[in-house]
Amino acid sequence: MKSFVAMLALCALVTTARAEQAESAPKRYAPSDMLAIAPGLAHYTDSVLFGDVWKRAELAPRDRSIVTVAALITNGDIGQMGPHFARALDNGVTPRELAEIITHLAFYAGWPKAVTAVGIVKGVFEQRGVKPEEIAAVDSPLLPVDNANETQRTAMVPREMGDVVPALAGYTRNVLLGDLWRRPGLAPRDRSLVTIAALIAEGRSDQLAFYIGRGMRSGLTRSEISEVITHLAFYVGWPRAMSAAPVARAAFVAAARPRDRSHNTAPAGKSAGK
Amino acid sequence: MKSFVAMLALCALVTTARAEQAESAPKRYAPSDMLAIAPGLAHYTDSVLFGDVWKRAELAPRDRSIVTVAALITNGDIGQMGPHFARALDNGVTPRELAEIITHLAFYAGWPKAVTAVGIVKGVFEQRGVKPEEIAAVDSPLLPVDNANETQRTAMVPREMGDVVPALAGYTRNVLLGDLWRRPGLAPRDRSLVTIAALIAEGRSDQLAFYIGRGMRSGLTRSEISEVITHLAFYVGWPRAMSAAPVARAAFVAAARPRDRSHNTAPAGKSAGK
Amino acid sequence: MKSFVAMLALCALVTTARAEQAESAPKRYAPSDMLAIAPGLAHYTDSVLFGDVWKRAELAPRDRSIVTVAALITNGDIGQMGPHFARALDNGVTPRELAEIITHLAFYAGWPKAVTAVGIVKGVFEQRGVKPEEIAAVDSPLLPVDNANETQRTAMVPREMGDVVPALAGYTRNVLLGDLWRRPGLAPRDRSLVTIAALIAEGRSDQLAFYIGRGMRSGLTRSEISEVITHLAFYVGWPRAMSAAPVARAAFVAAARPRDRSHNTAPAGKSAGK
Repeated sequence: MKSFVAMLALCALVTTARAEQAESAPKRYAPSDMLAIAPGLAHYTDSVLFGDVWKRAELAPRDRSIVTVAALITNGDIGQMGPHFARALDNGVTPRELAEIITHLAFYAGWPKAVTAVGIVKGVFEQRGVKPEEIAAVDSPLLPVDNANETQRTAMVPREMGDVVPALAGYTRNVLLGDLWRRPGLAPRDRSLVTIAALIAEGRSDQLAFYIGRGMRSGLTRSEISEVITHLAFYVGWPRAMSAAPVARAAFVAAARPRDRSHNTAPAGKSAGK
Repeated sequence: MKSFVAMLALCALVTTARAEQAESAPKRYAPSDMLAIAPGLAHYTDSVLFGDVWKRAELAPRDRSIVTVAALITNGDIGQMGPHFARALDNGVTPRELAEIITHLAFYAGWPKAVTAVGIVKGVFEQRGVKPEEIAAVDSPLLPVDNANETQRTAMVPREMGDVVPALAGYTRNVLLGDLWRRPGLAPRDRSLVTIAALIAEGRSDQLAFYIGRGMRSGLTRSEISEVITHLAFYVGWPRAMSAAPVARAAFVAAARPRDRSHNTAPAGKSAGK
Repeated sequence: MKSFVAMLALCALVTTARAEQAESAPKRYAPSDMLAIAPGLAHYTDSVLFGDVWKRAELAPRDRSIVTVAALITNGDIGQMGPHFARALDNGVTPRELAEIITHLAFYAGWPKAVTAVGIVKGVFEQRGVKPEEIAAVDSPLLPVDNANETQRTAMVPREMGDVVPALAGYTRNVLLGDLWRRPGLAPRDRSLVTIAALIAEGRSDQLAFYIGRGMRSGLTRSEISEVITHLAFYVGWPRAMSAAPVARAAFVAAARPRDRSHNTAPAGKSAGK
């Protein structure tokens, strides 16, 4: 009996979250429960988060959905995933791209987070009547490996890592960089968005510079990256977003140099150098 | 069918957690399930955590509840929130303060954590018969901005951050510091407790020193801050608590200096300086 | 009604996860839902994670289960714990050891994670018909304190920490090192595995070196530690595993020195030294 009440509480949180998505009313985004219980939070939700941040032109709604969804999966926010998966579909992320974001995050946030997300996206796909052919495997060839990628590959697998964890270096070369990043289901630019969001969500600023650089080579602008950090302040909290700011600054400076030598300061090597 | 069994397991954990709150028996705090399954954990729960830590005079039960609740929300410990929200009410945290803690954490742990907490606190408020007027919005004016706050505001928004993420710098100035911290629903001292707990829970020692200093200016004593760290070792684990210890030491030393120049080493700037 | 649909989604994820455990078919590990929704993830699950990583000889299946379970509990991956607890039992972790792993993690990941895990392991024990005497408290004496342990104790409680958080220093000496690590229910080597996995899962590389050194003194080999990092890349994501690599390298170098002076660079002291 008590457990039943407890379960209702658990369900309520999911219901509450779903209401976030009801954007038909002009300026009311916060669900009525939130308005009754935490009117301050409802106020900021209406006037700042949905009334302002999500509408800023610096980052497209589709991109905002990609980073939001990536942050939720990485941080295991199971109660909020369903409505944001649906919102991502509304904002132009295709079902196949959503599945590919989850697959990408298996590597950057861990398998458990991805498997959990599959269970939740399943419910959203059913509710939306997504057809099997919209998400079935396709036989497209992998994207080509270009020279920049080769440089990055070298950068990602410092010799030192190969000495200490040779198997992980191998999986990084053959599976992560040699296969996952080349899958055609999600553009490299969008994979960079997902990865940057995951790293900020995990608070891993040591490896963030590398992926910001990679994202810029794939077409992300400074303005977009800056806005990703601003957007994520609301989805993973101010502290992690603020820690990302100086890293972005350093990455912007590095990207502006005539010759990119960022592969000399690869993530793992950087940590080791401390 | 299988999913039903799985769901029962999920409910069981909530039930188990609820029992924590049954403190009528003199020395038995651990629920009977825990005693049967993990007697070692039950032993430490009874003899150390509830039998000793929670009773230490260095931090009031109300403050312990504030930091516990903040840590649970920040770390997304959904199964344990309900009983600790109820315990917080028992320990003198008012329903309005609890809602304000959640609102505060939307900014320091991210919106998803706060929205999830709203769903759970709703169930607790219903169970306790909290009346709408106890949590309805009030029309009190914002707390005044004092000089110390102005200094902090400058410290929190280093010029460098404004260059890289100007929008985030703006929200920090106008919403976070200019509005949230000035809301009358929660004393600045208690907001500091919540923020310090969130930062320790997230393992963000780079920004902790700033908020320990701010907390001390709002009335937190060294002894209380030290006890917050001790208490949180049990709620977020030893490693994050131990990482907080040297930061606290540095903040204590800085606070003892005749002239506080801590605004020269603002969080983001500090990270950048590495 | 809506909440019911939402709940079904929540259950689906647990069901989906359970299927991971069905390893009777020769090469199909991914559940059919995953295959339909995220075929890329299913491909990597079958061909890399279960078809390759879990089968590598460098780390025994029992050890892989120990680090997997420790990572899931530490990161609060509630949807994936049930099947992996069952898998751990299949791989030779005894029910009592599993309970002791949870107890150990109360200290290294926090009480809420452990209490949540107790609720989930309860369901698994019931499903497997684990008998009360298999998990009941035993009256074995604590393991002896050896000289190496004494050195570690000194290392873990630097004078500085005792100044700032004396109570935590006391609990570290008397409860964590003086009692928990000496409990006979889990071998010191296995406690090291659990602790190393928890630290990598939390992304706390600052305290990892100390525990890798301790693990090696308890019998963990370099090859096993390297494989733990590789295995965890799949369970907590690449970024945290990559951050662990240079720490492991430094710990290996330190362990190879004729005289181990690692107690001069204790975790908290190291952070403070920055």
